[in-house]
Amino acid sequence: MSLIRKSVENMSGYVPGEQPDDSRIVKLNTNENPYPPSPVVQKALSSLDAEKLRLYPNPVADALRKRIAELHGCSVDNVFVGNGSDEVLALCTRAFVENDGSIGYLDPSYSLYPVLADIRDVEKRPVPLKEDFTWDVPSDYEASLFMLTNPNAPTGMLASVDQVRDFCSNFNGVVLVDEAYVDFSSWNCMELALEMKNVMVARTLSKSFSLAGLRVGYVVGSEPLISAMYKLKDSYNLDMISQEMALAALSDIEHMTLNAAKIIATRVRLSKELEALGYHVLPSETNFLWVKPANINAKDLFERLKNIGILVRYFNGDTTGDYIRITIGTDEEVEELLKALKT
Amino acid sequence: MSLIRKSVENMSGYVPGEQPDDSRIVKLNTNENPYPPSPVVQKALSSLDAEKLRLYPNPVADALRKRIAELHGCSVDNVFVGNGSDEVLALCTRAFVENDGSIGYLDPSYSLYPVLADIRDVEKRPVPLKEDFTWDVPSDYEASLFMLTNPNAPTGMLASVDQVRDFCSNFNGVVLVDEAYVDFSSWNCMELALEMKNVMVARTLSKSFSLAGLRVGYVVGSEPLISAMYKLKDSYNLDMISQEMALAALSDIEHMTLNAAKIIATRVRLSKELEALGYHVLPSETNFLWVKPANINAKDLFERLKNIGILVRYFNGDTTGDYIRITIGTDEEVEELLKALKT
Repeated sequence: MSLIRKSVENMSGYVPGEQPDDSRIVKLNTNENPYPPSPVVQKALSSLDAEKLRLYPNPVADALRKRIAELHGCSVDNVFVGNGSDEVLALCTRAFVENDGSIGYLDPSYSLYPVLADIRDVEKRPVPLKEDFTWDVPSDYEASLFMLTNPNAPTGMLASVDQVRDFCSNFNGVVLVDEAYVDFSSWNCMELALEMKNVMVARTLSKSFSLAGLRVGYVVGSEPLISAMYKLKDSYNLDMISQEMALAALSDIEHMTLNAAKIIATRVRLSKELEALGYHVLPSETNFLWVKPANINAKDLFERLKNIGILVRYFNGDTTGDYIRITIGTDEEVEELLKALKT
Repeated sequence: MSLIRKSVENMSGYVPGEQPDDSRIVKLNTNENPYPPSPVVQKALSSLDAEKLRLYPNPVADALRKRIAELHGCSVDNVFVGNGSDEVLALCTRAFVENDGSIGYLDPSYSLYPVLADIRDVEKRPVPLKEDFTWDVPSDYEASLFMLTNPNAPTGMLASVDQVRDFCSNFNGVVLVDEAYVDFSSWNCMELALEMKNVMVARTLSKSFSLAGLRVGYVVGSEPLISAMYKLKDSYNLDMISQEMALAALSDIEHMTLNAAKIIATRVRLSKELEALGYHVLPSETNFLWVKPANINAKDLFERLKNIGILVRYFNGDTTGDYIRITIGTDEEVEELLKALKT
């Protein structure tokens, strides 16, 4: 008898984008923010007393949830904070999907979703994007849980609140609207999490707040859904330092907004420059661009850029293989990329 | 149709020991270390640059695993590092237990284990301790995964390496030897994780390293078991700061050992004093004592101590209800406790 669960033997794990140690590399591959987090975070970090680490952290991140509830005009009971939205997503698959249930998502979308379904060992029900990368879920479509990235990755495209609301009200299961990139977008769906019993909206501090290294994400939703997640989480899922740093970051929304505005400006400029080079550039509402190169195959371009120290992201596959995903870096990084693309 | 999985609706979550905000409270309830972590940790913390938090952490904690492998004389492929041993334990239930499988553990033992079985929605197969709190697993006993706390909690008692080896070699499934308290013990079972294909040994930095607030635990075992866990974990399960602080702590084993020695000395003294008061004190190989009070019911004692600002731990139940668990604090804290018990 095998010691390892059969479904686990058969699956391959998620492969995150490369994290090279070499700081000379222009890293435009994992949608990190090129700007530092708020100085309030550095201040909080520098004043930390290691002695208090001997105690367990607050098991349910009370202070942080209170701040998040305040920001979204809801109750603390509507907020779950996780060890990155990674944990939020994984917990949803365990809280809202029976063993004979199913998980839906757009295809292509965040490549972690099918892996999460494999981990849960349940049926995957992907909904293919249309040729123009917009989506339409068939009216007879069913699943226990749908993970809807909006704006979507890797396409960067944002569906309207009305489209998302229509989908959610026709859907029987739980919809997790994953708004990882929403601070770079023109609108958001938070109101749906506060209106509808089956809708949750997830956010992360990894992108717009420049805190990918910290692992803090959260989700807002109706109290019964949130309370189910709290039953399942690890006893102390969020360490003390992360709780304090996240609270510091959320006390300085302005810093985040100004960084996001800089990134959006760079995105608009890069977008125009790439179009001028003949690239097909999808309309992005995120901190990355999804582009089809001109006169060169996407995979070749990915590899040639990598050889000269510029990392972007390439996803093998029928619908994704003609495109590359470029994270918006600083103006200098984007300049370096453009220089390389022009030669 | 309910949005929430039936087994989740029906279960109650784990209730961690209280974490009061009031620093005047004598906190002897959650087995925290009364002494601060190594000064190397404070130094590493103070020199952290918040800017690098904008990047994702190393997804598999390479540097930390290398140090742990070095400490135990094994390969990096034999080491999994988790967001506290909480994550290690939960992953074992997902990696090594089929949906129709079962989870075994001693009863009483760490009260999280039955909760983890409920979360996985699989059968629980507790093995009752004998009247003297030692254990013996029936020869026809089977389970997919056995979680063996050694030394055990809340009893504090340590089984011999030979007894654990015998049990493991007769057992068909995976044995996770949870050595959370081992640095306060006379011996450990790490050799079994390196010898036997079905044995893993888990450690934590929460207790002996005074880093409960940091959430770092790890497990050593055969490569196929470790690699199964890596497939299932959250993509970036350990934040950047925790990785660096843990590495700092593991570079100063001497500090931990000296703290553990102080705690053991206090434990021996408290043990004698309580016996002199007529308490039944189990032989402890941990940083806590499991004691049956004299002339007062355990629950009453727990509550009366709480009323005067001294927190210990009480577990309801047939086998546990006559005892209280007392974490070994500083000599001053233990003095205060003894003064209270004498009056």
